[in-house]
Amino acid sequence: MNGAQSLIRTLVGAGVDVCFTNPGTSEMHFVAALDDVLQMRGVLGLFEGVVTGAADGYARMAGRPAGALLHLGPGLGNGLANLHNARKGNVPVVAIIGDHATYHRGLGAPLESDIETVARNVSVWVRTSAAPERVGADAAEAVAAAIGAPGQVATLILPADVSWSDGGRVAAAVPPVGRMPVSGDVIDAATAAARSGGSTLLLLGGPLLADPGALDAARRICVVTGARMLAETFPTRLSRGAGVAPVERLGYFAEQATAQLDGVEHLLLVGAAPPVTFFAHPGRPNELAPEGCRVHPVAGPADDGAAALDALAAALSADAATAAAQPAARRPPRPAGALDAAAIARAVGALLPEGAIVSDEAITSGAPLPAATAGAPRHDWLTLTGGAIGQGLPVATGAAVACPDRKVVALQADGSAMYTLQALWTQAREGLDVTTIIYNNASYEILKVELDRVGATGAGERALDLYDIGRPRLDFVALARGMGVPGTRAETAEQLTEQLERALAEPGPAVIDAVVPQLD
Amino acid sequence: MNGAQSLIRTLVGAGVDVCFTNPGTSEMHFVAALDDVLQMRGVLGLFEGVVTGAADGYARMAGRPAGALLHLGPGLGNGLANLHNARKGNVPVVAIIGDHATYHRGLGAPLESDIETVARNVSVWVRTSAAPERVGADAAEAVAAAIGAPGQVATLILPADVSWSDGGRVAAAVPPVGRMPVSGDVIDAATAAARSGGSTLLLLGGPLLADPGALDAARRICVVTGARMLAETFPTRLSRGAGVAPVERLGYFAEQATAQLDGVEHLLLVGAAPPVTFFAHPGRPNELAPEGCRVHPVAGPADDGAAALDALAAALSADAATAAAQPAARRPPRPAGALDAAAIARAVGALLPEGAIVSDEAITSGAPLPAATAGAPRHDWLTLTGGAIGQGLPVATGAAVACPDRKVVALQADGSAMYTLQALWTQAREGLDVTTIIYNNASYEILKVELDRVGATGAGERALDLYDIGRPRLDFVALARGMGVPGTRAETAEQLTEQLERALAEPGPAVIDAVVPQLD
Repeated sequence: MNGAQSLIRTLVGAGVDVCFTNPGTSEMHFVAALDDVLQMRGVLGLFEGVVTGAADGYARMAGRPAGALLHLGPGLGNGLANLHNARKGNVPVVAIIGDHATYHRGLGAPLESDIETVARNVSVWVRTSAAPERVGADAAEAVAAAIGAPGQVATLILPADVSWSDGGRVAAAVPPVGRMPVSGDVIDAATAAARSGGSTLLLLGGPLLADPGALDAARRICVVTGARMLAETFPTRLSRGAGVAPVERLGYFAEQATAQLDGVEHLLLVGAAPPVTFFAHPGRPNELAPEGCRVHPVAGPADDGAAALDALAAALSADAATAAAQPAARRPPRPAGALDAAAIARAVGALLPEGAIVSDEAITSGAPLPAATAGAPRHDWLTLTGGAIGQGLPVATGAAVACPDRKVVALQADGSAMYTLQALWTQAREGLDVTTIIYNNASYEILKVELDRVGATGAGERALDLYDIGRPRLDFVALARGMGVPGTRAETAEQLTEQLERALAEPGPAVIDAVVPQLD
Repeated sequence: MNGAQSLIRTLVGAGVDVCFTNPGTSEMHFVAALDDVLQMRGVLGLFEGVVTGAADGYARMAGRPAGALLHLGPGLGNGLANLHNARKGNVPVVAIIGDHATYHRGLGAPLESDIETVARNVSVWVRTSAAPERVGADAAEAVAAAIGAPGQVATLILPADVSWSDGGRVAAAVPPVGRMPVSGDVIDAATAAARSGGSTLLLLGGPLLADPGALDAARRICVVTGARMLAETFPTRLSRGAGVAPVERLGYFAEQATAQLDGVEHLLLVGAAPPVTFFAHPGRPNELAPEGCRVHPVAGPADDGAAALDALAAALSADAATAAAQPAARRPPRPAGALDAAAIARAVGALLPEGAIVSDEAITSGAPLPAATAGAPRHDWLTLTGGAIGQGLPVATGAAVACPDRKVVALQADGSAMYTLQALWTQAREGLDVTTIIYNNASYEILKVELDRVGATGAGERALDLYDIGRPRLDFVALARGMGVPGTRAETAEQLTEQLERALAEPGPAVIDAVVPQLD
């Protein structure tokens, strides 16, 4: 057994049986070993940003990591932005980077570069496997590092000769570090804060947002204490819709968030970090908790936030019997007339199927989505966790691999779509059930919004020209067709709704190029 | 004057007046300052790999660096592969990475990451500008670092508040480190080697390959001594065609290179590194110089190789009068019949216009190109210097910005094209005169070749499936149209030739989707 074979067998034994990849020569023995270990599924991407983003989306929905097999330092570079997003979302990913043979390093070959240095940008755990005998054990540790609380990117660098040489040994799975229980003292303090009569806010984050039971515990706490609850701005996975306790998200813009947090005296952080602005803006504060507010860190990202909510609910006698019923399905009517972001939101709200997975990278166009879809049947909502655009289509792709029986809906801004549009090809190749709506407003609209907010005075025609992506206008129907995905163009709300209905009714990928106006 | 304004004014003063960019919020004041400093041209890319590759292509042809303005760590990650290629090609690039405001760092905002760490993978010079008063001086040093011998990537990290705050000061250009002259002793030793009567080979590399005078000096040395000459495998820029001394390139595959180097007793390295294999292969040597061959490092990458060749020619009395005439134009006939890589090579040879710039990322399909185009009118040939695919279309884009009066021809493999296809949109937006031929063989053909060579036994259907990019087949006519570039499909040699002729006759970008067979 060579190193590559022991690697794949160890991964499969540890529950990692999907590997997204864009391989090169140095990963060839790994690829060859796929014919030896049939339990591992290789999924090809035409670009590494697709590979890493798909691994992220897969893990969010499968609850276990995929591999992301990349070619040397440049391949890692190409995949770095979506590994950044995975890191920020505490999503487990096992990145495997092929390297030159150990005895080929230092010769200055064209593709030689310092891989570990780049890997450290996104990975807490980085290791270069030194010998075929070590690969299995290294792989088992990589998986444990990735899935250990709070979930992260682990990077295993695999030199070609370590991969191709005999001596590989399969290693048993290593138990990962679990989530830490929250101490009774912390629960007592949180209980006292919630009971104090002051204005209390639960800020929720992390995996408990994907757990309807935890959301219900939070809701019951709010019912009995009068507290409010919010979710972090960019959840990795948020369970919502009919039958799930609804939770609004903290706003992206500081003005929104400040209004939501206004008057809060006790801020209980359960799986969420202290709220800060996305960017700094001249003369405005970065930290969003109001002055004088007491911040209570109840559960950190590596703690068991769901159990903490249960304990808090129990301490407050917020049991199920005392609580109001959760909302049932309540869809908006199908939209009619002009097509804009609000009409798209209503169409999605009207048609989103039970069990859908939504990958949301709609950026400015996404504002009307939460309200319009809150009453749709139960679904999961995946967001842009690390701010590095180009995540939406790959995450949708990976989610569809993880959940072949669920419909995936990608709500995607045009500018961001162009970072990793190659994901459509993987969707076509794998026959994935993903319906993508592109908000084609021909603009980096968010940057025009931010231009005023950062006080960039003096910006004129030449600056605005760099936010205009409508010259020439992108034709996403043609782009999708070029990658084997059927596409249609919608210019009215009726067209969009009909096209969405049809796409959701049929299996396989589809793209709707929705022509929407820019903001005023 | 704020930091951003002082930065742009300093860059313009140092001769950097084009900036390729994909900006975000943290680069907003830089963008706004473009309306203040009209001499700086901003060129937008839809993806950072386009931005950095275009900066590379621009510098190769303009002889001076462009700026590459990127958004935070993820933007640098997306641009890293083509910065790697620039680094390996010793191409000067001034990378400017916007960062969060200094007082926003450490808060854990979504886009926060360690930028310097990633930058060190590709940059010898990295600096984070600490205050608006420092930005001008830092920028002047960055330009000097980039253009100093041998040419490299310099990375200036610009925190948002340093950019937006007042206090900027324009700095004067800093003189760069020049190329080192080669000592008389080294020339004497090389002269003795060339005269020794043993089999001598000049291996040429670096900027002298773009200098017809230097190539002629090398040719004259060969005429008088009986030595042979070769160019490094992947020249940054190779001047060739009618009237230029022809030089064959060292082969990519070890078997080719070994045959070319067979029997060489004296290997004179002039601007080239000692020849090594691209990848290691089990049981084969990495270093390609034959056993017993004496290697003479005449000029390193930072030395003045052109002057060394002149000095060597003078010492050997290899003056112009003794030398044979250089070849005149001699084109192959237009191809007819089935379309394959050889037919495309003949069509390019038959039609390549005087002064053309060829961006060659044809990979396996490129093998017939050198012979078929050697007799075309004088032109420049740009290759994939660092092995990180996805460079060809961006480099073509940047070269076209640098040389608006010359025709650019991109010869592009299909798989590599899909890494940075967004370059076509920038070509359309800027009206760049680039004709792209896509070799559409629906395969990562090079990997199938390497699969045998690396001895990956056991590779079967599942492995080969990961090298098959024909399911679904990419339609580059549709993809080009989606980005505003007219495209045609060629399925015979006649169609290809007619379409190429038409595209070369018309200004602006065009894509030819050339359907070619896979290798046997």
